[in-house]
Formats: sequence, structure tokens, C-alpha cells
Amino acid sequence: MELYVERGFDDTTVAEIAKRAGLTERTFFRHFADKREVLFAGAAVLQELFVTTVMDAPSDLPPVEAALAGVVAGGVLIQERRAFARQRYAIIAANPELQERELIKLASLSAALAETLRRRGVADHAASLAAEVAIAVFKIAFERWVADPDHLDLPQLMRESLDELRVVTADSETGRPSTAAAS
Amino acid sequence: MELYVERGFDDTTVAEIAKRAGLTERTFFRHFADKREVLFAGAAVLQELFVTTVMDAPSDLPPVEAALAGVVAGGVLIQERRAFARQRYAIIAANPELQERELIKLASLSAALAETLRRRGVADHAASLAAEVAIAVFKIAFERWVADPDHLDLPQLMRESLDELRVVTADSETGRPSTAAAS
Repeated sequence: MELYVERGFDDTTVAEIAKRAGLTERTFFRHFADKREVLFAGAAVLQELFVTTVMDAPSDLPPVEAALAGVVAGGVLIQERRAFARQRYAIIAANPELQERELIKLASLSAALAETLRRRGVADHAASLAAEVAIAVFKIAFERWVADPDHLDLPQLMRESLDELRVVTADSETGRPSTAAAS
Repeated sequence: MELYVERGFDDTTVAEIAKRAGLTERTFFRHFADKREVLFAGAAVLQELFVTTVMDAPSDLPPVEAALAGVVAGGVLIQERRAFARQRYAIIAANPELQERELIKLASLSAALAETLRRRGVADHAASLAAEVAIAVFKIAFERWVADPDHLDLPQLMRESLDELRVVTADSETGRPSTAAAS
């Protein structure tokens, strides 16, 4: 990670990463499929955390609140590793190929969230919509937070972003959500 | 496109595509950067349509309604080309690399929508949230529609999906959106 910041992602070799970490290249490849995985190995942890948190959420929680609980648990974890999160974000922001990988991981997280909501009995499309909303909140709150991770609170920004999303999507006529398509 | 369906995307060469279309390879490359661009050239048209529709929307329209207007205009266009849309979807669904490209194009569309909303005076994060919501609606309505494009109405599914999203995100306490974070 430090090497990516110092020298740029493209100009850092696996040999250099392994040496800095005090590992052989062989040991490195036992842990990571390639040098990109140093940055994305956390996605599996995050997904597991999303899924278990959503499954354990109170059964009467509405879909988007259950999905948000998962995302907020992820936010707590990320905030505990703020130095890593900030460095990682800077590296990814500087490299289009890594941004693509990040989009794919976010799409996987959204699919996993939707699947978990379905296992809680949420209807098919409602589950997809709630998961997409939670991931949008995750993404936008994270981008706000990472600009000043020492002073901002990521879980709180996530809750605020969901509130803001509700305001933004409120029905134009009444300022309240339409219930025409209640499921 | 027919060739991709017949033989699979990976097993189709540019020479074969050009021949089927009655073009030389040179002419093909004048129109498309590579064979993937046959599938993604429409994204630029869609983006232009999103942006102009959102800019032309009535100025008192709330952010998400303005974003939806852009997305619905795209839905009308896609529906006019339902045979192409269905084939294209089947090709992309069968190929992870094309799915990645699709995610990137959707992220670009979301960024363009958010930027257009900001030009209409919508606050920074509210614009990002409204754009993400509109793209989520676009994606999920499209996936419903493409299963039966001869009988379903894409623009209508988009409006229904937004209504459903409002229901799904409604506040747990009141069944209405929280206004705690009104912007």
C-alpha cells in the first residue's frame, strides 16, 4: 500500500511489495491472486459482514433499514481502518483499471445484499431496489467521509445520506412518497 | 450482433462482423474502436439524451423527477429498438468482461446525470443521490422489461420502479420519508 502511494500502482512490482512486507513472492501469491487483490481482498470481508448483519437484523425492520444496517456495519469497520481506507481510495482514484474493479466489487456487494433481503422474505424487485439504494448511500457517504476521515463519522454520514435520499426522492405533488405501487 | 448470438462474443472476429455487415475491416474500425464498441456505441447517444432531457425539464421539477425524465427518454428509445436491446442483453449477460464494461457505462451515465442536476442548481450530494436512484431505477426496470419486451412497457416500468423505491425506502416509524436531513 505504501509503495502504491510512493511509486504509483502501475510502477510497483509484486517483488517490491513482498520485500517491503518481509515476504517471499511465493508467500505473497499464497495470499493474493495478483497485486490488485492487495486492495480488494477486503471486499470479501465486507460482503460477509453485510450478509450476517442483514440476516441478524430484527425481522420487522423494513428492507432498506435492514440493508442499511449491513452497510453501516461495514462503515464502522472501514472507519476503524481509516488510514488504510484513505490510502486505498487515493490509489484507486488515480487508476481507471482499479476503478473498474471497484465498480465490480460494489455490484457484487449489491447483489449479495439483494439476495440476503430475499432470504428475509423481501419480494424480488423490492430487494434489488433496497440493495441498490443501500449501496448508493454507502458510496456517496464514503466519498464525503474520505475527504476528512479524521473528523467525519462514516456511519452517521450513511444514515444522513439515506435521509437525504428520502427527501430527494419524495413525491413532487405531496412531498411524500407515492404509495401507488405499494408491494 | 447476430454473429455474437450465433457464435458467442469471444469466437466472433471483426473480419466476420465486417463481412456480415457488408463492410471492409477498415470501414469497421472507422466506426468502432474495437468489437466491444458495437455493443456500447449507444451509451454516448443515451448519455446525450439523458443530459438534454434533464436540462430541458421544467425548472420546478424535484431532482429525482428531473433525473427520471432523462432515464424515461432513454427507455422510450431502447423500447423502439427492442430486438437489438434483447440480443445485446443476452450477449452481455453471457460474458463477464462485457458486464464490466456495462457497469462502467452505467457509472458514467450516473456521473453525467449528477453533473446535469448540479447545472440545474441541485446541491452536490443531493445530485449524486438523485442520479444514483435514477440509474438504479433504469437498471432494475430494464431487467424486468427485457424478460418480455414485446408485452411490457419500459417507461411505465421505470415510473413504477421509482414508486416502489419510495415505498421500500419509506421511514420505518411513519411510513413516510424522514425530513430530518432536508436540504
